[in-house]
Amino acid sequence: MNITIHQTHHQVADFSGLFSFLQKLFEKKNGDYKGLHLFPENFLTGYPLKDLCLQKSFICSYQKFLKDLNKLSLQFFGQNPEKLSGTTLLLGGLSYSFDKEGLPTQIKNVIYKLTPGKELEALYTKRLLPNYDIYDERKYFAPGEELKIWDFEGKKILLLICEDMWPSHFYKIDPIKEAKEHCQKKNILLDLIINISASPFHLGKAEKRIDRAQEISHVLGAPMVYVNRVGGEDEILFDGGSFITDEKNLLREGKTFEKDELQFKLSSPPQKVTAKESDSFIQTVNTWESFFNPQLNFKSSPAELNPLNDLQCETILKAIGFGIQEYAKKCGLNNFIVALSGGMDSALVVTLIKLFLKKDQLLEALYMPGFYSANLSFELSQKLCQNLNIPMFQFPIKFLHSTVRNSFQDAFKEDLQGLADENIQSRLRGSFLYARSNLTNAMVLNTSNKSELAVGYSTLYGDSVGALSPLGDLYKSEVFALANYINKKYNNIIPEQVITRPPSAELREGQEDAHSLPPYERLDAILEGFLSYRMSQEDLIKHGHNNEEVSKVFKLYQKSEFKRFQFCPIIKLKAKSFGFGYRMPLSSKNID
Amino acid sequence: MNITIHQTHHQVADFSGLFSFLQKLFEKKNGDYKGLHLFPENFLTGYPLKDLCLQKSFICSYQKFLKDLNKLSLQFFGQNPEKLSGTTLLLGGLSYSFDKEGLPTQIKNVIYKLTPGKELEALYTKRLLPNYDIYDERKYFAPGEELKIWDFEGKKILLLICEDMWPSHFYKIDPIKEAKEHCQKKNILLDLIINISASPFHLGKAEKRIDRAQEISHVLGAPMVYVNRVGGEDEILFDGGSFITDEKNLLREGKTFEKDELQFKLSSPPQKVTAKESDSFIQTVNTWESFFNPQLNFKSSPAELNPLNDLQCETILKAIGFGIQEYAKKCGLNNFIVALSGGMDSALVVTLIKLFLKKDQLLEALYMPGFYSANLSFELSQKLCQNLNIPMFQFPIKFLHSTVRNSFQDAFKEDLQGLADENIQSRLRGSFLYARSNLTNAMVLNTSNKSELAVGYSTLYGDSVGALSPLGDLYKSEVFALANYINKKYNNIIPEQVITRPPSAELREGQEDAHSLPPYERLDAILEGFLSYRMSQEDLIKHGHNNEEVSKVFKLYQKSEFKRFQFCPIIKLKAKSFGFGYRMPLSSKNID
Repeated sequence: MNITIHQTHHQVADFSGLFSFLQKLFEKKNGDYKGLHLFPENFLTGYPLKDLCLQKSFICSYQKFLKDLNKLSLQFFGQNPEKLSGTTLLLGGLSYSFDKEGLPTQIKNVIYKLTPGKELEALYTKRLLPNYDIYDERKYFAPGEELKIWDFEGKKILLLICEDMWPSHFYKIDPIKEAKEHCQKKNILLDLIINISASPFHLGKAEKRIDRAQEISHVLGAPMVYVNRVGGEDEILFDGGSFITDEKNLLREGKTFEKDELQFKLSSPPQKVTAKESDSFIQTVNTWESFFNPQLNFKSSPAELNPLNDLQCETILKAIGFGIQEYAKKCGLNNFIVALSGGMDSALVVTLIKLFLKKDQLLEALYMPGFYSANLSFELSQKLCQNLNIPMFQFPIKFLHSTVRNSFQDAFKEDLQGLADENIQSRLRGSFLYARSNLTNAMVLNTSNKSELAVGYSTLYGDSVGALSPLGDLYKSEVFALANYINKKYNNIIPEQVITRPPSAELREGQEDAHSLPPYERLDAILEGFLSYRMSQEDLIKHGHNNEEVSKVFKLYQKSEFKRFQFCPIIKLKAKSFGFGYRMPLSSKNID
Repeated sequence: MNITIHQTHHQVADFSGLFSFLQKLFEKKNGDYKGLHLFPENFLTGYPLKDLCLQKSFICSYQKFLKDLNKLSLQFFGQNPEKLSGTTLLLGGLSYSFDKEGLPTQIKNVIYKLTPGKELEALYTKRLLPNYDIYDERKYFAPGEELKIWDFEGKKILLLICEDMWPSHFYKIDPIKEAKEHCQKKNILLDLIINISASPFHLGKAEKRIDRAQEISHVLGAPMVYVNRVGGEDEILFDGGSFITDEKNLLREGKTFEKDELQFKLSSPPQKVTAKESDSFIQTVNTWESFFNPQLNFKSSPAELNPLNDLQCETILKAIGFGIQEYAKKCGLNNFIVALSGGMDSALVVTLIKLFLKKDQLLEALYMPGFYSANLSFELSQKLCQNLNIPMFQFPIKFLHSTVRNSFQDAFKEDLQGLADENIQSRLRGSFLYARSNLTNAMVLNTSNKSELAVGYSTLYGDSVGALSPLGDLYKSEVFALANYINKKYNNIIPEQVITRPPSAELREGQEDAHSLPPYERLDAILEGFLSYRMSQEDLIKHGHNNEEVSKVFKLYQKSEFKRFQFCPIIKLKAKSFGFGYRMPLSSKNID
């Protein structure tokens, strides 16, 4: 049996695009397309849809699309009865139930079978609906209740959708265990396991998917096909990397962050299940984040953040480049603008965009020196832009800043000073950056990192502005690692001093991050403890961290919730990111 | 049997506050406190906790608090065995299960029984866990599986938690129907139904709660006690309004938006259930919003928004005043600042704050005229501040604006014009407003309304700034209604011309909202159709709306998602608000 994995890349609700895509597939002349064709979860709709799947405008368009597909199938087969016999498509989609008034009562996340000449048929409904972190599937979908072993051309095929292969303490059922028991009881030898997914990217997840698939393949005694989609949906990236594996060997692997097509011939006869009866093959997890993303090294004291290796840096680089381009495309923007400060974060952001810039796209940098900007900041920014071969505009804010100071004296008979004087510089810069972007129709990239976001080390409506945050899920020490990796790979494209000079916001005389925050390596470890391991202060102190530092960081973290609330979308790179999956009260009682 | 309803008002996770509260209750000398004491859902923790309930810092503090309560109960009773006999407390709280490593595996939303002299005992677990709109309960809690009819002092009492009384198409079970069948089968005559809730406010909900309670009281043949909490948690208000009702008459009703205590003597003997076997007493609902909030009048053509009546205006007034004060208290801010434009929205916001201002709080207005500000805007702002007896500062932006224009020419050799020139004025104002708030430690109130938010008629980081949005859930026509209501009640405190002049952003010569948007009455009806009824464009056209207007509004709505994403918390006043319960992709394909 020939199997084709379609690792597709379509926009959410792009029904006309999907229709053309399937029409073209139907019209292929050669015999390559005989066999079984697999498409990702929610291929027919896109994912995640969030509230869009409840909107009548979406529902009507989608229902019309399904009707058109059925027509295509019936008509096309009528005209070409020979060409497509032996071809079957499995497509992820949604199946709606309606009441008398045409309003939806239930939505199921299903696998549709499409055999040319016949109408779409829902074969299987997703059983495990994730509802943690970024997932809200219980909000929209009703879970399926039955295991499905599909008889197809004499083969026994277990069908799964995404989360179905990840039973955990969140669920009452375990579809894999159930499948095993069912096969043993009924004496079924499985030929294949198919999992169609829409699985969001984060660092280390690709490896876990393969490990888990091999574990399941071992237990159920059949190879597994894993189909994933490609795309960037606001904060969330789908990285593809579809694969076919048996219990030991990865037989085929798709590209990451781009569409792909994998072909595969299923020939090997099924194996008798050899695994022990009582195989407990999923690790008990209590924090989903720590299962996927063991970032802290507890062997050192104090516990420290595991450093990023080159392979991880390369993956992050690719992910961020993809995420920026996806967001720009969907927003219809072709130009980019970044405010350079002379510091590392903004230097890295502008470099990242440049590395992935397309031919017809423009990128410019804006340098806005104020009273406290060092000459070095200008020199380094200019050097960087020369290295990158992009224009840098200077927009000095000194005169405007002093004008505002004077106007303040006039209006309020008070000096603009302290935090107010620091913040106004940052907010003026934010305003001018957006003024320029209004003129050039450019997308403003935010330059904050995860450490700054966590402790509120930024000015709301100032340096926190932007359409998208590429670094918002990387701690400062990871920003360093990524910058160093890029310099190694791209011949020191970022001036070295940008990386080695002490970080500063340059909003007052002699300001340095290190004066008000613990050193970044300790800060980052403490934050990772709070965020991904949900540790208490006591836990962190047990792991060798300093009482005062932990307490200071925790206080800063708690009181900056309002800044994170109004922040732009963050490209999600880790299991725990400040974004849609992070939901905290803004004004809760402080807890020590 | 004496029953006391404690309609409490405590901050989330305020364990020391709760402990003192309960300790004081234990120490009361008189006999009034004999009997059954009822507390709201999640009384022991606060609600909503969101991810806080997963954080170890929270969990440890909460577990310690429960231990302390148990100690209090045992010790106190040891010292005063006679005083509290016959006293029992029912308290909403969370019950955690832990694994070997002390990490939580399951959280249940329960009713604890606390009898002095004994430890806390979980009597009942909430069965219906809402997961739509603002609710994420399936994310955190595991549902209970059993009905609970509690035998207490010879009485049969049905226990429910909040959503348990609202079965709908979201759930597979119906606890009310089950209770009825159970009672009939076992020949049980119920004496009482208790529902402890943490039920968020929105317009019209209080009436629905009473209707529904009476319906249940009728079906189950027993009176119902409904206990609700009081508090403002970011966007969400809990309005109290606890009550006791039988099938026809409201026997007692608590205050709204403040704490209260209701006492009640349960004496009447239970009644035989008289309702028909097949009573289907909950309306089938497909959009939760339209069930709670029928805002559109479909009898008119085009369909129009039902106007707010005086009672609704009074409720909204109270809700907004409460919401502002709650947020300020929790953020530790005692001063307020509002930017006045001379238009109605900002005039209404400053008036609302003034009406609820406490003695030790300061409120100031900031008027920032630019090139396009009419003299009338100044005069009306000044008049309003005189009427309200609050200081108004003037901070002209003309000179700064022209300085920015010149600097732009210098830096980019291009004129600052069009949208860029409009937006910069709004962003400069936002920056100066925040500079002033930094100096006075004042909370900045946002002045946008729901119509503006829906069509993106605001400048990101400009007039969209603020810590909290009091009007973000009111359409422009409702803002008019509220302003008129206040003027009727408070002797025309808002200068009439503020209400009658044509709305304008005053960012360019002769700008008026009406030139780029449909008239507000039609705009608002179209928006309500999209948002609360999830209508398609076709639906709205069927209901008499103009094709072009509908299409224009829909386009503006779709392309302004990024502005709403970075908006501040909005006080929720309606079933469907732009806030935590509104979850839309930012960059999806447009759907007609």
